[in-house]
Amino acid sequence: MARVMNKIRFARVLHLSQSHVRVTRSIFLSDKRCQSTCSDISGIFPPIPTPFMNNGDIYYEKLRQNLTKWNDYDFAGYVVQGSNGEYPLLTTDERLDLVQEIKDFIPDNKLVLAGAGCESTSATIEMSNKMADNGADAVLIVTPGYYKNQMGHRALLDHYTQVADKSKVPVVLYNVPANTGVVIPVKTVVHLSSHPNIIGIKDSGGDISRIGRIIHETRDSKGFQILAGSAGFLRASYALGAVGGVCALANVLGAEVCLLDQLCREEKWSEAKYLQHRLIAPNAAITSEYGVPGLKAAMEWYGYYGGVPRAPLQPLGPDDVKRIRKTFELNGFL
Amino acid sequence: MARVMNKIRFARVLHLSQSHVRVTRSIFLSDKRCQSTCSDISGIFPPIPTPFMNNGDIYYEKLRQNLTKWNDYDFAGYVVQGSNGEYPLLTTDERLDLVQEIKDFIPDNKLVLAGAGCESTSATIEMSNKMADNGADAVLIVTPGYYKNQMGHRALLDHYTQVADKSKVPVVLYNVPANTGVVIPVKTVVHLSSHPNIIGIKDSGGDISRIGRIIHETRDSKGFQILAGSAGFLRASYALGAVGGVCALANVLGAEVCLLDQLCREEKWSEAKYLQHRLIAPNAAITSEYGVPGLKAAMEWYGYYGGVPRAPLQPLGPDDVKRIRKTFELNGFL
Amino acid sequence: MARVMNKIRFARVLHLSQSHVRVTRSIFLSDKRCQSTCSDISGIFPPIPTPFMNNGDIYYEKLRQNLTKWNDYDFAGYVVQGSNGEYPLLTTDERLDLVQEIKDFIPDNKLVLAGAGCESTSATIEMSNKMADNGADAVLIVTPGYYKNQMGHRALLDHYTQVADKSKVPVVLYNVPANTGVVIPVKTVVHLSSHPNIIGIKDSGGDISRIGRIIHETRDSKGFQILAGSAGFLRASYALGAVGGVCALANVLGAEVCLLDQLCREEKWSEAKYLQHRLIAPNAAITSEYGVPGLKAAMEWYGYYGGVPRAPLQPLGPDDVKRIRKTFELNGFL
Amino acid sequence: MARVMNKIRFARVLHLSQSHVRVTRSIFLSDKRCQSTCSDISGIFPPIPTPFMNNGDIYYEKLRQNLTKWNDYDFAGYVVQGSNGEYPLLTTDERLDLVQEIKDFIPDNKLVLAGAGCESTSATIEMSNKMADNGADAVLIVTPGYYKNQMGHRALLDHYTQVADKSKVPVVLYNVPANTGVVIPVKTVVHLSSHPNIIGIKDSGGDISRIGRIIHETRDSKGFQILAGSAGFLRASYALGAVGGVCALANVLGAEVCLLDQLCREEKWSEAKYLQHRLIAPNAAITSEYGVPGLKAAMEWYGYYGGVPRAPLQPLGPDDVKRIRKTFELNGFL
Repeated sequence: MARVMNKIRFARVLHLSQSHVRVTRSIFLSDKRCQSTCSDISGIFPPIPTPFMNNGDIYYEKLRQNLTKWNDYDFAGYVVQGSNGEYPLLTTDERLDLVQEIKDFIPDNKLVLAGAGCESTSATIEMSNKMADNGADAVLIVTPGYYKNQMGHRALLDHYTQVADKSKVPVVLYNVPANTGVVIPVKTVVHLSSHPNIIGIKDSGGDISRIGRIIHETRDSKGFQILAGSAGFLRASYALGAVGGVCALANVLGAEVCLLDQLCREEKWSEAKYLQHRLIAPNAAITSEYGVPGLKAAMEWYGYYGGVPRAPLQPLGPDDVKRIRKTFELNGFL
Repeated sequence: MARVMNKIRFARVLHLSQSHVRVTRSIFLSDKRCQSTCSDISGIFPPIPTPFMNNGDIYYEKLRQNLTKWNDYDFAGYVVQGSNGEYPLLTTDERLDLVQEIKDFIPDNKLVLAGAGCESTSATIEMSNKMADNGADAVLIVTPGYYKNQMGHRALLDHYTQVADKSKVPVVLYNVPANTGVVIPVKTVVHLSSHPNIIGIKDSGGDISRIGRIIHETRDSKGFQILAGSAGFLRASYALGAVGGVCALANVLGAEVCLLDQLCREEKWSEAKYLQHRLIAPNAAITSEYGVPGLKAAMEWYGYYGGVPRAPLQPLGPDDVKRIRKTFELNGFL
Repeated sequence: MARVMNKIRFARVLHLSQSHVRVTRSIFLSDKRCQSTCSDISGIFPPIPTPFMNNGDIYYEKLRQNLTKWNDYDFAGYVVQGSNGEYPLLTTDERLDLVQEIKDFIPDNKLVLAGAGCESTSATIEMSNKMADNGADAVLIVTPGYYKNQMGHRALLDHYTQVADKSKVPVVLYNVPANTGVVIPVKTVVHLSSHPNIIGIKDSGGDISRIGRIIHETRDSKGFQILAGSAGFLRASYALGAVGGVCALANVLGAEVCLLDQLCREEKWSEAKYLQHRLIAPNAAITSEYGVPGLKAAMEWYGYYGGVPRAPLQPLGPDDVKRIRKTFELNGFL
Repeated sequence: MARVMNKIRFARVLHLSQSHVRVTRSIFLSDKRCQSTCSDISGIFPPIPTPFMNNGDIYYEKLRQNLTKWNDYDFAGYVVQGSNGEYPLLTTDERLDLVQEIKDFIPDNKLVLAGAGCESTSATIEMSNKMADNGADAVLIVTPGYYKNQMGHRALLDHYTQVADKSKVPVVLYNVPANTGVVIPVKTVVHLSSHPNIIGIKDSGGDISRIGRIIHETRDSKGFQILAGSAGFLRASYALGAVGGVCALANVLGAEVCLLDQLCREEKWSEAKYLQHRLIAPNAAITSEYGVPGLKAAMEWYGYYGGVPRAPLQPLGPDDVKRIRKTFELNGFL
C-alpha cells in the first residue's frame, strides 16, 4: 500500500519532469522479487546505524525495536551498511547476517539497498551476490578508496562494469569523498549510467552543480536515478531532478524528512524551503560534524536505541552531546 | 524602467518567501544615489572581464563596446573587479579608473558592485571609499587569503566589521575558496549579517547546504541578501532563498541567465530546471575548468571583445578553445 | 651472520647518537622467536608486492622466485602487506597464507613485519594474532581511514593501545596519509611510544620536520624506532635519527638502497648524498606517481616477476612504462 | 670580515660536494654592488618582521633597534618582506621605503633579499626594479597565488622568465604553498635554473624529497642555490646540498640557528642533529602553528620589539602566548 502510494508519487514526479522520464525495467533481472521492486529507488532511505551491545556484539533485539518504529514511516526502504551502518567495522559474516535479519523484519514493500563495496573488485562481486542471496534488493557500491591516487576514470569504469556485469541485483553507485577521498568523475558516471544493471547513484559530496550535471548528462539513460546522499541538500537535489535521498537524519526525524520529500514531490516549494532550512544544521551535526557517534547520541532522544559505536569510533562526551541537542532545539525539533 | 520591473519582481520574491522578508533600508547611507539603489542587490550581475590590448593596457574602447551590448539585458548591474575582472593583476589607479569609466557608461538603474578587497584591512577601507567616490554603489569584499591559516572567525569578524564601519557604501561579503583558500565560517556570516552596512554575501563555494544554512540563520537580519556566485548553482540557490547571482556565464549568455532568473522568480521550476541543466557544463568550462582565459575565448563567439588575459594568466591554445566550444554546442548555445 | 652484522651496525648507530639509545627489550614478549629478533627493526625492509596470475590468484611460485633473489641482499627483513602488497585487495585467508608462505621461505635472521591493520580495532587485534601465529615477528598497523574525520588523538590512542595490549607480537605504527587521509598527531605518537609493545613507527608522509620532532620527543622511550616510509627521504631521515626504512624501491634496486643504508650508518654523508639524489626520481615514479602498477612494471627489468595488479588497480599502458624506464635510465640504473 | 668567513665556509661546502659546485658569476649583473655580493646566497637569512606602532604605522625606530641586535649575528643577510614581513599588508610605498631604510642600517657585507612578488608579471617587474634601486641585492619572487588553478608549468615559466629577463638584480624563486596554494613544479624549477639571472630558490614546502630532487636535477646549472625555507628542515636540507636557510626562527634564536648552520658546514652531523631536534617545535610554534603573531610574541622575550601585527592579522591571546613560551622552555631556550 505504501508502495502503491510511492508509485503514485513517482508518476507525479515523472509528469513534472518529462525530460527525465524514469521507467521501470525488469528485463535484465532474473530474481523474482527484484523484478517487482528494485528498479525504482525513488523516495527516502534512512541509512540505518548498527546497534552494538557494550561488549561490542551486534544488538539484534534493539535493531528490531528500531525497525519497528522506522517501519511506521513512509520510507521507500533502508540503506543497510552505508557509512552510517559502520560497515567497515563489521566482519563479513556480520554484514551478511544483518541484511538477512533486516529483510526478514520489514514489510515487503520496503527495499533493502545493501552496502556491498569492498576494496577489490572480486570481493565486491562476491559480497554483492551474497547480499542478494540474503535478501538485498539492490547493492550500493562505494568507490574503493585506499589507492585513491589510482582511482581515475579507467579504474572506476572497469570496477563498476565488472561488478554490475556479475551482480545478481541492480547496482547503485556511491560517491562519498569525505570518507574515501575519491570522486567518481562525471564522465565515468555518464558512461556507467547506460549499463542495464546500474540503476542510479547516491551522491554524498554536496556539490549541487555536479548533481545537476549528472542528471542532465544521464538523461538518455532511462531508469538511471539520482539520490541525494544527505538531507542537507535534499530539496536542492529534488529541484534539479533527483528522485530521492539517503538521509542519516531520517533515522531520527523520519516524519520531517518524509514530509520534505512529499512537499518537493507536490511542488510546494516554499513550504519545502522553510522545512529544508530547519533541517540543515541538525543534519550537519549528526553527519559532517559528529558522525556516527553523533547520530547514535541523537537517536536516544527519539526513542530509538543508539548505543555506542564500535572502536576505533568513540562515543561522544557530554559537552558534544549537549551541543548537538542545542542545534536540534534551536530548530524546533526538541 | 528595468529597475521598476526589478522592484516588481523583487516584491514577488518577497511574497514567495514570507519568512525571509528583505526590506530596503536607507537610514545608514549618506550618499544620495546609494539611498535609492544599493540596498537591493537582487537579480543578475555579470562579473565583467577587463579587456586588454596586446601591449597589456586596458582597452577602454572595447570595454565600452561590450558594455553597450550588456546594457541591453535586464541585468541588475555589474560586478566590476570580481575574480573574472582580473583585479589582482590591475594597479590601484587602473582599478579606480575602471569603476569610474563603467559607471559613466551604464544606465542609472544598473548598480556597480565594485571589488575592493585587499589583503590588509586599512587598504581595503581606503580602496572601498575611493571606489565609492568613483561611483561604486556597493563594494564586494573578498576574504584576505595570503595568511589563510590565520583567517578564522576572529580575524574575519574584525576585518569585515572595520571595513563596514568605515565604508561610505554598503558592503557585500565575498566567499571564494577556490581562489583564496579561505571559507568564511557560517557563524561569522551570521554575526556580520546584523551589521547595518553589510547587505549580503556572494558565495562562490558551491556548497548548497552552506548556502541554505546561511539563508536560514540570517533570516532575522532584514536586508541581508544572498547571491549565488556562479550560474552552476543559481537555480538551487534561488530554491533556498537566494535573491540573485553573480554569474560569469552572463557575460556571454546574458539572455539565458536572465531567463533562468525570471523563471525562478515566476516559480516556473520545471522550465527553470531544464535551462539550468543546460547551463552547468558551459558555465564550468569558462570558470572552474578554464578560468578567465576560457571566458575571454568564449566572448569572441558572441560578438564581444575577449582578448588576452594579463600575465601570468595565459591565453588558451586552440585545442582548449575547441573543447569549450564543443561544450557550448552540445548544450545548444552555438 | 647478516643479523650479526646488522647488530654491529646497530651498535655503531647507537654510538653515533647517545641521545637516542635503542636497547633491545624482550621482557614483554612471550614468543620465543620474537624475543631474539623483533625488538630491533633497524635496517632496510622492502614492502614486497604480491604477485598474481592472470586469473587473479596469488602466484606463489613467482613469489618464491622473487624471494630467492631478495634473500641475497642485506635486508633486515620484509614488510608483508604494506600498501605495496595490495593488502586491501586480499582476502583474510590470503593475507594469512602469504605471511606463512613467506616466513617459511626466508632465512631465520630476516624479520617479517606483517601489515595487520583493519578498520575496526577488534578485527585488527584478531588479524595481528593470527599473523603472529603464522610467523610474523611484528605487526605493522596502518591507521584506520574510512572515518577519517573521527580519527583524532583520542580515537587513535585508544585503537593502538588496545591493539598493542592484546597483540602477541610487537606493534609498529604506520602513518601513510596519501592512502588513508589520516595523520597520527605527533602527541599521539609520543604517548604511544611508551607502550612496551609498541616498538616504532613507519612514517610515509615525507614531512621531515615531523620525523625529526617525533624522534626528538620520543627520545625517552627506549626502543622506540623510526623507519622512513620511502627511499625518497631515507638519507634525510637517517640524518635525524631514523634507524631504517621501508622502501618500495628496494624491491628493484636492493643493492643500491642497502648501500645507501650502509653509507649513512658509516657516516659517509657526501657519498650518501649523491646516491640519495639519484634514487629520488626513480622512487617517485614507482610510488607517488604510478603506484603499485609502476613498481610491478619496473620489477620485470630486474629479473623479478611483477605481473598485473589486482582490480580495481589497472596495469600501466606502454607509454607510462616507457616514462618510468626513462627515469631509471636518466639516473644510471638501467 | 664576517663575509670573508662566509666565503671560507662556502668554499668548504664546495669541497664537500664536488658534484654541486656553485661558482660566482657576475657577467650578467650591471649594478656594481651586486657584482660583488649577490651571486652567493649561502648562509642564514632571517625573514625579518615589520614592526608596527599601535596606530598601525611602521615603527622605524624599533626596526633599527632590532637590526642593531641582529647585525651582531653571523647572518648572510636579511629577507625583507617575506611572508613574515607581512608584505601583503604593506602599501607599495611602505615596501620600498623599508628596503631602503634597512639597507642603510646594515653592514655592507650583509645582503638584502627583498620580496618583490606581486600577482601580475608587470607589477612584479616594476617592484623588483624599484627595490633594486632602493638597495636590494636580489629579489625574492613568490608565486602568484590568486588564480591558483591556472598557475601551472607554462604560466610560471613565463612569469619568472619575464621577471628575470627584466630585473636589474638577480631573482630567487619562492615556493610557499601554505600561503599561495601553488607549488612550482620541479620541471619548471629545472627549466628556470639555467636562466642567468635566476640564482636560486627558497623552498618553504618542507617536502624533503622534492628539495633533494631539485638539487639533483639543477646540478648542471652552475650557481643555482637552494635555501631551506624554515629552520624545521634546515639540517635535512643541508644534508642534501642546500646552501642556506631563510629561517623565521633566526629572528629570535639567531645564535642557535647560526650554530646549526656552522655545525652542518663543518660536518659535525651528530651535534647538528641534536640541536636541530630542539629547534623543530619552537620553530613550528612561531610559523605553521601561530604565524607572524606568534613570532612577534616570542620576539619580546629576547629583547626585540615584536608588537602587534597589522589587521586582519590578530595579536595572540595570553593562553596562546603561554603555549608558545612553554615550547621554548621545554627545549631549553628560555
